[in-house]
Amino acid sequence: MLQKESIRDWFISLQQSICEQLEEADSVGKFISDAWERPGGGGGVSRIITNGAVIEKGGVNFSAVWGKAPEHTLKMLKLSETSADFFATGVSIVIHPQNPLMPIIHMNVRYFEMSTGQYWFGGGIDLTPHYVVEEDARYFHKQLKQACDQHHESYYNDFKKWADDYFYIKHRQETRGVGGIFFDYLTADDKFTKQDRFDFVKSVGNAFAPIYTHFMHKNKNLAYGEREKQWQYLRRGRYVEFNLVWDRGTKFGLETDGRTESILMSLPPQANWAYSHQPEPNTTEAKTLSLLKKGINWI
Amino acid sequence: MLQKESIRDWFISLQQSICEQLEEADSVGKFISDAWERPGGGGGVSRIITNGAVIEKGGVNFSAVWGKAPEHTLKMLKLSETSADFFATGVSIVIHPQNPLMPIIHMNVRYFEMSTGQYWFGGGIDLTPHYVVEEDARYFHKQLKQACDQHHESYYNDFKKWADDYFYIKHRQETRGVGGIFFDYLTADDKFTKQDRFDFVKSVGNAFAPIYTHFMHKNKNLAYGEREKQWQYLRRGRYVEFNLVWDRGTKFGLETDGRTESILMSLPPQANWAYSHQPEPNTTEAKTLSLLKKGINWI
Repeated sequence: MLQKESIRDWFISLQQSICEQLEEADSVGKFISDAWERPGGGGGVSRIITNGAVIEKGGVNFSAVWGKAPEHTLKMLKLSETSADFFATGVSIVIHPQNPLMPIIHMNVRYFEMSTGQYWFGGGIDLTPHYVVEEDARYFHKQLKQACDQHHESYYNDFKKWADDYFYIKHRQETRGVGGIFFDYLTADDKFTKQDRFDFVKSVGNAFAPIYTHFMHKNKNLAYGEREKQWQYLRRGRYVEFNLVWDRGTKFGLETDGRTESILMSLPPQANWAYSHQPEPNTTEAKTLSLLKKGINWI
Repeated sequence: MLQKESIRDWFISLQQSICEQLEEADSVGKFISDAWERPGGGGGVSRIITNGAVIEKGGVNFSAVWGKAPEHTLKMLKLSETSADFFATGVSIVIHPQNPLMPIIHMNVRYFEMSTGQYWFGGGIDLTPHYVVEEDARYFHKQLKQACDQHHESYYNDFKKWADDYFYIKHRQETRGVGGIFFDYLTADDKFTKQDRFDFVKSVGNAFAPIYTHFMHKNKNLAYGEREKQWQYLRRGRYVEFNLVWDRGTKFGLETDGRTESILMSLPPQANWAYSHQPEPNTTEAKTLSLLKKGINWI
């Protein structure tokens, strides 16, 4: 039987492996390591990279925390127990690149377990280009589909749709970027064992570094100017809006005394806001806005 | 009997008067005017100023909207009706100055009325210095106390405490700035008539321009350098965090299809985030953090 310690240990090794691959592709930036403890039980290690050659600000966070389960979790699980313990572990990543022609990327893989026996996996990867380029979006989704297809034929379609709905900035009626995959509450059932679910999560985790280092190598030297930087800052403003207003994980973390600096490592080094900004028609900026929609089949 | 149209008209004149006084004190920046309609009823006029000599980005918004009351309002009022109409009008202001030695300011005054007869006033003013200076905080609170004292001896103390609790960035355990006053659900009772409550709201509205133009004249030419600008960007990041994570008005607006650009005019032109930033001990930045606490008696 797959134990939580094995899952936690795999997440630790994933964090290490991703940091190594990102450092190698960046060639200048180095991760600093910041370990923290949670008063109620457990802790984590935030690994932060800033001012690299390619990455301007990024975090690759690992945590494993435990303690008394919040009341709303007991309620959500419809448990009759008045008290139970939880264990949660995972890896969370957000990378903000220097070059506006490079996309922002986010990944999260996580495992949650209750002392009452319930457990599930969750996670996702999504890509937020400052400028949407169909070819890049297609490459990204193909890699995700490949990771999904190894485990079940319906995974990609189901989790791609879930990502479109999840990574959505409702008050802008825009998707955050070109989507990706999102999944939650994956547990054993008549089709999948716990190990099957974990194997899928591993494939997602392992897909991250090849995907992003591909973009790092391909896009890092693309030429840009002040116009592209200004657009990047506005697009990062939207990223802030999504994370602080709509992202369930961020909201939950901030409302339940999570470790603020680790949660907010997702925020960009700089973001700008301009009142009612509208790109000129027939520009790459206007094209980007027109592609921030749900339901696009990128493949 | 005081009608909603009179209250609305007074808010329109307040917006005009504040814009004139800010333009005069800025000497360069001019407000542009952006009228909008709400599909469900009513609308507003956002007045936006950018790249002034003193003000970098600011908005003075008026709105008067009406329609079917949201379910949660009926629930909050414990009404037996299954349907009722609401009317809401008010003025909202946020000003982000160029100079980091100038404070950010926010004001809101509003009136809400139900077709079932309930009505109330709400509002507040609070000051967010990038660098807390006791003398400025004292001046600010004295002006507010003066406005409050004309109407009731307990107003200032009660509403100052309410502001400390409201303008609080829980996940940082910091107040947004040096507080101010905040009040809500002010209706007629055995001590106050509707006109009394409105007269108080008028005093609050009228206090805004003299307070902020005082700071504009006094602080606009204070010398600063790159260090102060960088700190301003980080402090603005906290402003973004408060507004998007905790501000009830912003959250309510974004979740109920309010006019996004008018709601988010409160966001700064530029905000920065740095992982786990800690000012050096014994600096003005460290002193500022130490003063972002509830319960300080500034007067």
